[in-house]
Amino acid sequence: MDINADRLWEDVMTLASYTDPELPWTRRSFSERYNIGRNWLKDKMKQAGLTIEVDAAANVIGTYKGKNPNLPPIVIGSHTDTVPSGGRFDGIAGVLAGLEVIRILRENKIILEHSIVLVDFTAEEPSEYGLSTIGSRYWAGNLTKEMLNYTNGSGQTLATAIEYAGGNPREIVKKALKKSASLYLELHIEQGPVLQENGASLGVVSGIVGIRRYNITVKGEPDHAGTTPMDLRKDALNGASELSLELENITSQNFEESVVGTIGEFRVFPNASNVIPGKVEFSVEIRSISENVIDEVAELFFKKVNEVMSKRKLVVDVSFVSKSNPIVVNENIKNLLKKSCYQVTPDLMELPSGAGHDANQMAEICPVGMVFIPCKDGRSHCPEEWSEKKDLANGAQALLNALLIYSRP
Amino acid sequence: MDINADRLWEDVMTLASYTDPELPWTRRSFSERYNIGRNWLKDKMKQAGLTIEVDAAANVIGTYKGKNPNLPPIVIGSHTDTVPSGGRFDGIAGVLAGLEVIRILRENKIILEHSIVLVDFTAEEPSEYGLSTIGSRYWAGNLTKEMLNYTNGSGQTLATAIEYAGGNPREIVKKALKKSASLYLELHIEQGPVLQENGASLGVVSGIVGIRRYNITVKGEPDHAGTTPMDLRKDALNGASELSLELENITSQNFEESVVGTIGEFRVFPNASNVIPGKVEFSVEIRSISENVIDEVAELFFKKVNEVMSKRKLVVDVSFVSKSNPIVVNENIKNLLKKSCYQVTPDLMELPSGAGHDANQMAEICPVGMVFIPCKDGRSHCPEEWSEKKDLANGAQALLNALLIYSRP
Repeated sequence: MDINADRLWEDVMTLASYTDPELPWTRRSFSERYNIGRNWLKDKMKQAGLTIEVDAAANVIGTYKGKNPNLPPIVIGSHTDTVPSGGRFDGIAGVLAGLEVIRILRENKIILEHSIVLVDFTAEEPSEYGLSTIGSRYWAGNLTKEMLNYTNGSGQTLATAIEYAGGNPREIVKKALKKSASLYLELHIEQGPVLQENGASLGVVSGIVGIRRYNITVKGEPDHAGTTPMDLRKDALNGASELSLELENITSQNFEESVVGTIGEFRVFPNASNVIPGKVEFSVEIRSISENVIDEVAELFFKKVNEVMSKRKLVVDVSFVSKSNPIVVNENIKNLLKKSCYQVTPDLMELPSGAGHDANQMAEICPVGMVFIPCKDGRSHCPEEWSEKKDLANGAQALLNALLIYSRP
Repeated sequence: MDINADRLWEDVMTLASYTDPELPWTRRSFSERYNIGRNWLKDKMKQAGLTIEVDAAANVIGTYKGKNPNLPPIVIGSHTDTVPSGGRFDGIAGVLAGLEVIRILRENKIILEHSIVLVDFTAEEPSEYGLSTIGSRYWAGNLTKEMLNYTNGSGQTLATAIEYAGGNPREIVKKALKKSASLYLELHIEQGPVLQENGASLGVVSGIVGIRRYNITVKGEPDHAGTTPMDLRKDALNGASELSLELENITSQNFEESVVGTIGEFRVFPNASNVIPGKVEFSVEIRSISENVIDEVAELFFKKVNEVMSKRKLVVDVSFVSKSNPIVVNENIKNLLKKSCYQVTPDLMELPSGAGHDANQMAEICPVGMVFIPCKDGRSHCPEEWSEKKDLANGAQALLNALLIYSRP
């Protein structure tokens, strides 16, 4: 039973074409274009024989009934919104692969034990209202009344936006949801270079990294760049530079799980060519699938911070910003997906997801599994984002295989 | 024959008190307050028996006639404008020390061979018109017609500003000046920590550093901070950090003359906590009294730039920005000033000036010499700028001694 690679590809290219023509590929959540794209999707879901529903958070839901009404459904999901000037695969690849899987089942007259619920989750990407994973957040019971009052640049509330997208904010306020599901599966482009670099066609996600963030300020003396000899300087930039290299060095070592460390924001004061930098403010981010590894890296890093500051007679302020816990995919689900992928190709590997997904929210209500397909040169969230037709079809095939293994009557 | 330390100190404190009350200590060139301060100065110069003149560039000039009208004068100068939120000594210490020296000569009825010309040079600090050392630039024949058309934020020209300060821009345009002088002497606060760190009370300036400036852009890839493993990153910040530390390391080594290297401007793009820095733009400045040392440092640095870029697979753009030549004080003048200082204190040292001064322009028309007095903790161009009364008097005494040695009948 094979996925129709051409049909799936055509769907992806069609939905991607609903883009802001000035800024490809853009289909921002809560825009008119987003609604138009989702209407096209609903038509496709109807043609595939799904029962359509739009819930209070404006999630677009299509159900393919299973044999056993007592089993919570298997949910297949992802999203159809994009970042500004994003790509053609992030999100929609997962929704349309789910659609293709259900079409194939129906065409082959296969009814599974579980109902299959296909969801286009509302606003997975950071929205204009400062919130991401809005639809899946609702399913996990994490979309609060306060969040509905978040506003965009024009002062409109998220509640108004959800209503515009077809949702019902009053119902969200009325009762907190906690959906039940047997399993959540999501296909997604990797958004990184690991599969390509390793020559793998499919990836089974071992978990989603936890993220720890700090803001650090290094203070020196903003002295005259001409009159202060090298040995009498308190140069905040050189102090911060050492820390940036230390973080790189530490996170490049081998730990029990892979880890990355990034200084992405970095501001120098007073920032004049003839003044020694007196202050640098920068962000530090550590991500790993293992909380222990994050702790270990943070400890090594802050030890270096103290060493460098004391050596250079600089002063440091560290403020903790945020922490999200890692999600570990359970062994059964990982084995299920490895088996399903292996039926498609032997070129598969296990890898953590460094980015967040709707699966982060879904992990609070059921076991989750994710399949990654390669993305060219690791580029994502940019117009150059690209996946091959064959890789997309392989990923959808693996999803289909997983359903057949997990829920075949 | 001793300087009157109290009188000199009182003059400095009085002229410093002509400050923007909201932003001490500020007396910007071409402001009303600047004119008021200079009127006070002119009164003081008249009381000291000087013949007063304001030239086409609004320089305030007082002459104390010498015996031999055929000798070009000895010029003593500095400036009375400040940077915004500057200090109480930078500039005015030199002008008022010159005034005190002439007062003492006159009180002691000493007429020298040379006339002594005391000058408050117009706008030594960077003015609102994007130009510095305006008055001394005029004396050196370097104030061009084009420069007179430079404008400030409100669109007014430098010509208008010079007229407001009492100058005559039409005359500047009419004929390029090339003043003649036998010698230029300037007392200035050090604006750095070298004298204090070495326990010296007076400094004889060996020269004024040359400045070489470059702008450098390091380009990597602005990839996702979660999905790009450490070994596949092209992190422009870590590349630029290595270069910052290399510049520090190179300029901390021993060369035949001292040298400093500074990265003062530093901008990271896209500058988001979850995106690997894809680009860093930064300034590089190298200063030394030896052009050879500047060349040597630049060569070592750019060799490292190439090594780091190729190791990290980053791309670099280097653009040359500007170059000012070092000024070397001639041995005779240095010896004259050493002798003059030694008559005041044995705690003296020779040191280069890392900052530019009116002496840079004057060096184009006559031999120059500078005496530095210590400045607390090296702080300058800030409200904390401070020199001791005794050090100021010592510096003025050294100037007086130099005149008596150089020009005694």
